[in-house]
Amino acid sequence: MNLILLRPDELAAIGAGSYRAVLADRRLAHLREVLRASVGDSVGVGVEGGELGRATIVALDEQTATLELRLGEPPPPALDVTLVLALPRPPTLRKVLQQATALGVKRFVLFRAERVEKSYFSSHGLHAHALAEDLRLGLEQARDTIVPTVEIHPEHFGRFVRERLPALSEGGTPLVAHPGATTPCPRAPIGPATLIVGPEGGFIPAEVAMLMQVAQAIDLGPRILRVETAVVALLARLAP
Amino acid sequence: MNLILLRPDELAAIGAGSYRAVLADRRLAHLREVLRASVGDSVGVGVEGGELGRATIVALDEQTATLELRLGEPPPPALDVTLVLALPRPPTLRKVLQQATALGVKRFVLFRAERVEKSYFSSHGLHAHALAEDLRLGLEQARDTIVPTVEIHPEHFGRFVRERLPALSEGGTPLVAHPGATTPCPRAPIGPATLIVGPEGGFIPAEVAMLMQVAQAIDLGPRILRVETAVVALLARLAP
Repeated sequence: MNLILLRPDELAAIGAGSYRAVLADRRLAHLREVLRASVGDSVGVGVEGGELGRATIVALDEQTATLELRLGEPPPPALDVTLVLALPRPPTLRKVLQQATALGVKRFVLFRAERVEKSYFSSHGLHAHALAEDLRLGLEQARDTIVPTVEIHPEHFGRFVRERLPALSEGGTPLVAHPGATTPCPRAPIGPATLIVGPEGGFIPAEVAMLMQVAQAIDLGPRILRVETAVVALLARLAP
Repeated sequence: MNLILLRPDELAAIGAGSYRAVLADRRLAHLREVLRASVGDSVGVGVEGGELGRATIVALDEQTATLELRLGEPPPPALDVTLVLALPRPPTLRKVLQQATALGVKRFVLFRAERVEKSYFSSHGLHAHALAEDLRLGLEQARDTIVPTVEIHPEHFGRFVRERLPALSEGGTPLVAHPGATTPCPRAPIGPATLIVGPEGGFIPAEVAMLMQVAQAIDLGPRILRVETAVVALLARLAP
């Protein structure tokens, strides 16, 4: 946690551009146990959807921490890549959401493919509070405040590609990560992009054929990577 | 596991270029439980330090699997980056070893820094069998056979930089990942490189000052990343 992330409703104005916030949850535990902070210490803060700033701890005990803060710094630029991901198993989803959020992704779209287990769509990891937790961990890591969106599309793959993907691809160059593609992943920002990443076992041939009609296939060379490794590697190449 | 990795001493020659191998460990469990393989199925194999090939399962029961195989394909090219890493906490070390091995790193050097907890050097994760397991998982993932080396340097940081780093840097352009460096990480292979990555909390200023004298500082932009994310992102940029 490189940033204490506050909700706008936690801020009470106490003067021109100054606010007070009182924490009693895991952010308190983080201040006490990880940062070993004391009254008078300064910590980095940010407001969800808003600016970054610095806070001074004005009171701290086992129940609460009281911060006085000033904002004014913009969050880092977003990475203009929509990540369209075959829903991975829950631990992989957590890693991808946290890491891709840290890298600046602001829109996640989760879809079904032949090699996605149906049970993944009823996993606790897809509950709103679990998703919010993973996104928040990514934001706190990268000192960002802009919470990404996560869309879940459990319909059949064919329907997803026909009915949803065209609108998603209007948002940016559609790329599909496919080991064995002859075009390497770009090594520089290409403007807005929609990056499609398949399941751990890969797309089946019929799925590849459908995707090739709507997206440019790219790869990272001859090495087969885990989904969480491939996503970070692809985003690192496309990042400014 | 995209490859059944065999040790050379497991191969028994049965004809010109053909070998037999009998498995009874987790590779057997993988064949039975993950691949749900049957007699007659073909699986990808490789020999540690050697070639890739295909095997046919000629016998399979609860105790053993017998494979007959032919080799002949070279493993994928190595990534010519020596990863010089401040020893991270054990779960992070595992992720880095597995992912960087999958990306093709062949030499890891683990060192001490001010923000490395001393206890990490006595972790079970540094035992030879634990390291070998992580490297093997990375090789099996990426269908590679060349086992990386891992060197552990528990001496003080200053001594490491003075006495060890010069020889390591002779092997390739020395780069140190340092958030806030004004030079971005290269976006293409730069030939052999020695990539130095600090601990989760960063190098302390005195350490940065020493490293700046012997290596080029590079960064990945304003976002602070976890060690495992940063390593994958850096390697993805430097990879061919």
